Order: sequence, then C-alpha cells, then structure tokens
Amino acid sequence: MVAQEKWKVAIVGSGNWGSAIAHLVGKNVKERSDRFETEVHMWCFEEEFEGRKLTEIINEKHENVKYLPGITLGDNIIAEPDLPKAIEGANALIFVLPHQFIGKACDQLEGKVKPGTKGISLIKGVDVKEGEIHIFSEVISARLGIECAALSGANIADEVAREEFSETTIGCRDLDVAKKWASLFETEKFRVAVNRDVLGVSLGGALKNIVAVAAGFVDGLQWGNNAKAAVIRIGLLEMKRFALEFFPGTEPETFVQESAGVADLITSCLGGRNRRCAEAFVKTGKPFDQLEKEMLNGQKLQGVETAKELHIFLKARGKVEEYPLFTFVYRAAYEGVRVDELTAHI
Amino acid sequence: MVAQEKWKVAIVGSGNWGSAIAHLVGKNVKERSDRFETEVHMWCFEEEFEGRKLTEIINEKHENVKYLPGITLGDNIIAEPDLPKAIEGANALIFVLPHQFIGKACDQLEGKVKPGTKGISLIKGVDVKEGEIHIFSEVISARLGIECAALSGANIADEVAREEFSETTIGCRDLDVAKKWASLFETEKFRVAVNRDVLGVSLGGALKNIVAVAAGFVDGLQWGNNAKAAVIRIGLLEMKRFALEFFPGTEPETFVQESAGVADLITSCLGGRNRRCAEAFVKTGKPFDQLEKEMLNGQKLQGVETAKELHIFLKARGKVEEYPLFTFVYRAAYEGVRVDELTAHI
Repeated sequence: MVAQEKWKVAIVGSGNWGSAIAHLVGKNVKERSDRFETEVHMWCFEEEFEGRKLTEIINEKHENVKYLPGITLGDNIIAEPDLPKAIEGANALIFVLPHQFIGKACDQLEGKVKPGTKGISLIKGVDVKEGEIHIFSEVISARLGIECAALSGANIADEVAREEFSETTIGCRDLDVAKKWASLFETEKFRVAVNRDVLGVSLGGALKNIVAVAAGFVDGLQWGNNAKAAVIRIGLLEMKRFALEFFPGTEPETFVQESAGVADLITSCLGGRNRRCAEAFVKTGKPFDQLEKEMLNGQKLQGVETAKELHIFLKARGKVEEYPLFTFVYRAAYEGVRVDELTAHI
Repeated sequence: MVAQEKWKVAIVGSGNWGSAIAHLVGKNVKERSDRFETEVHMWCFEEEFEGRKLTEIINEKHENVKYLPGITLGDNIIAEPDLPKAIEGANALIFVLPHQFIGKACDQLEGKVKPGTKGISLIKGVDVKEGEIHIFSEVISARLGIECAALSGANIADEVAREEFSETTIGCRDLDVAKKWASLFETEKFRVAVNRDVLGVSLGGALKNIVAVAAGFVDGLQWGNNAKAAVIRIGLLEMKRFALEFFPGTEPETFVQESAGVADLITSCLGGRNRRCAEAFVKTGKPFDQLEKEMLNGQKLQGVETAKELHIFLKARGKVEEYPLFTFVYRAAYEGVRVDELTAHI
C-alpha cells in the first residue's frame, strides 16, 4: 500500500546537512516521479545574507549560498520561511535541523500535520529532559502523532553534497516505508541500508561524538595510531553497551556493522569538529567554551555536551564507573582531569 | 597446573616487531620471575651491520641497532644466531618472523622442541599451499607437534616499543595458557585481551592488509572520509564473512569487538605500508612490483599478495563474486581494473 501512495516531501531545515540532503532529494523526486511529487518545499529559517533574504536568494539561484555554497539544489526545491506553510500538503517530512530548534518547530507544527504522514529524523544528538534521554524520532513522533524513522551514517555533509561516495543507514520499524525513504535519498554515490532499529541508528549518531572527543585527545597528545584505534574500539563497545542497557530493543549489529555505527564513528574520529576541538583543547589548554567561541562561532560542541548529559544520566543510576570512556571525556572537559591520564581510566 | 610451571621463553625472530616484543618480554620476565626464567634467548638471523655481526652488537649494546634503533632490549635478552641453540631448554616459544621464513625455521626445529612446549605466533599473514589456506599457528602446531596460540592487534611495532598505549588480542584454546602468555606480554601501556579464537585472531591480521590497500586507493583518489569509512566497514564485514565461511569455529566477535579485528583494521587503514603503497599506486601509476622496490626495499606488499592468494582460493571455489572488495583489490593490482571504479564494485 505504502509503496503505491505518492509522497509529497517537505524538508524541515536548510543548514549544511539539510541543503546537502535537498540536493539529493531534488534530483531523486524528479527521476522517481512515479513515487514522489516533484516539488519539494524546504523550510528555511529566514535570515539576511549580503543584504537580501536567504530564501529569496535560494529560490533565485537554487543554491544555499550561506550554508552550502557551490552546490545546486535543483529548481524544484522551494525555500519557504513559514514553517506551517512549508509542510502544507506534505505527507513525508524530513527533519534536519539543529536539535535545539526541534521543540520550537514542533510547537508550530502541532495539529497541522496530515494524518498518516511519515517522518524521518536526520537530527544528530539526543534529547535530555528531566534526567531522561530520548531520541529525536521519538520526540517528533510523540509531539506530532506520526511515525518517525531515523537516518544516520558516515555522512560529512560537504562530501555527500559533492557526490563523493558515502553510505548511510535508515532505521524504520516498517520496512516498506524504510525502502520508500531509501529510494528518496539513494543515489549511485549515496548508498542507503535499511533496518528496523530506529533506536540504534539514532544513538549511534549521538554517542559517537563523545568518542570523537576522546580520539581528538589522542591526536592532541600526539599519541600513535595504536592508541587511536584502541580508543575507537573501546568507545564503540561502550556505545553499544550503553544502547543495549538503557534502550532495550536496540540491535547490537547496528553499532558493529552499519554505517550509522562503526563507519560514522570512524569518520568522526578521522575528521569532524569534535575531534578537531578536542585536539585544540589539549594543544592550547583553552577550555571548551572558549574553543566553541573561537572555532565554532559560539555553537556548542556536541561531544562534550552529550558527555555531560550522559554523565548526569549515569550518575543518577549509579552507573558512572561502567562507562569509563564517556566518563573520562566528561571529567577531562569539565572537571580538570588531566587528558594524558586517559589510558589509566579506560 | 600450567600457571605453576615456570616458563623458559625463547623468541624466534628479531626484526622490528620481534625486537619490540623482546623489549616488553625482557622487562616482564624480570618483574614476574615467579612465572618466568629471567634469561630469554632470541634467535637472530646473522648479518653484518657496519662491519660487525648483528648478534654481537645486540649482546653488547642491548639494542637491535638495525631493526629497532633507540630501544633498549634489556641485558637479559640474548641474541643467538643458531636457531636450535636459541630454543635449547625453552618451553615457551614466540614465533615472530616474516612468514616466508617459517618453513625453514620449522625444518631446523623439527624434533628439537621439548614435549609440552607452548608456542605463540605473532606472524602476520596466512600460509597458502596447494590451494589451501592455513594460519601459521596451525602450520607451527603441525610441524612441531606443539600447541600454538596467536597474538595480533593494532600494534605498529615502533609505537609498542616506545611504550605508547596499545591493545592486542591473544587467541589460545586453553584460557589458562592464554593468561600466562598475557602476563608475559602485558604492561601498563600494552593491554592484552584473551579469547579462544586462534583462527579469528590470526585471520584478522592477514585479511586487514587487503582492506588497507583499498583504503589506500581511497586516499590516492583523494576521496573523502565518508568513502574511507565505508570501505573500512565493507572490508570488515567481508573479513568476518570470509573467516566464518571458510574457517568454521571462528568467532564473529573477534572481528567486530577485538583489537585483532576492528582496531587493527583501523590502524592499518590510517597508517601502515599497505595503505601508503596503495596511495602511491594511484598517484604515480607505477605497478606494485616497482613500488615494492622503491618503497619497501623489494619486500612484497602483503595486502596485494594476500589479495592474489585469496583470489585463487575463491576462484577455485566459485566464490569470487561474494567477496567484491577483496576481488577488486586483486583486479586493480594485477588486472588493470581502474581504481576509481572501486565503488561500482563493492
């Protein structure tokens, strides 16, 4: 049934990752017009860019000149500053915005989503409220009353946008819906695997950032590749253990076999902002809040934020000692524990 | 019983990795003299170095000036050019020599090994004969009539020798013996895990070299980190699949959880000669045999050699198509398939 219903897609978000995804989706809905409406609205938080409105520039140039310059989005991607208007008539919603904006977006969307609409979350991170941790698929699902899948993988946005080879994983409880999502994103160079593990796919993308901070410590200390590989391995097992302990139903294979697990972790430990800022933390001795200002325009670094949230979560459950790598990242970042003591703790 | 018997250790081999291991073992047998005799003989293929015999220099300077300069081996490591003499009285043999010398070494040792002697193989690679593949632990076991364990992990020799943090895995069917081996090698910075999976531990160290070649192709093509992580992930699954299909009894966890699996693979895909030569193969267009002369003093590059051997093995069994990454490395190295077609094949 699902496979026959035509999807009208809207993209909620238009940052670097959202624009990269819009680039793929814009092409695919044209090529696969038997399954998708060919016009895609993209909600774009309105801002000025060189004296003009960003949505106007995008709709004229078909390029997000601010967040993904140099990549065409296709003339069928329509930037729209009004969120409820952007999703009007849509029955397939891609959520791809920074996690701090999710709550506000849901406020605006509540009651306005068509029944039967499918959602997919491309949001990195987890939602922490009152000592509980939720994945964003669940948050969206609960707020909007829709089924919500998750997409995550070794997906540096610029590389995906340039159509360099990448893989990703979609977790979706209904495999027919999963396959339809896959056909919306997949290209020759962007390979999509599907499974039913919404939890594992989402958690992989959040937890790997903590491990990437530890990998950045190793780089900052100028330790070797053996140490870095060890930290990645230990981190991977801790991610998997955490997911299995606190999110029953998670599939261990998602962590050790899928792009959303081991591959995303590797990418993040090779490049990525968490690794880079952690390296700078060791080399400069500056605290993370200062590095966030200097290196990230004041944006929060997800790895250390997540480490802090997990620490509170684990402490409340008396489980701090069982997650030594996560705990070490928290303590090095916030409590002044010396970074070169890493291997004594993990 | 095993734990109480004192081991007299001999090291069969004294190259870069053998000397790094001698550095650890020399210290440990002194500190753990309740379990080990404190003098360790190390077989050293005699050669001239700056006009003197290498064994003489090692025994005078306690340093392998040719293969591991700058690292002290301890005055209890005695270099010995005569192999049967080197193992005289020993009941614990560490095999750590290039795989092409194993046959000759066994020729000299046959009938001279004390009954009940324990062996451990630190040899990388697999033995291919008459279309069959064997791990070196089995080869040694069969030739010398002794139990033989395996040690492998994310262990770049120079980093281990400099006592930078590293992990390794020992596979040994008898876990008591495994633990005794662990106590011979383990230091604060060289962490040893044990399991019963001699096959998995050995195969990890051999198969990862093929994947490292593919990772080097990605680097040579200047593709991004997404592609590199994808190749590592796909390669890891192919390694595991190969081991489970052709070596029944292998534990899948060894590949996805242990240092001998995922971590060694990551190290090899970050640094290492296979990755480096494969990158040069793409960038210079020179064939591998020329690169071996220029970059490896004529030594064979294990990744492409193993790819070739596996290809013959898989072809004989009609399984070539089921191992697309291994097969691609073979075809790119030997049959002129264009490297930039990698992602079309895997």
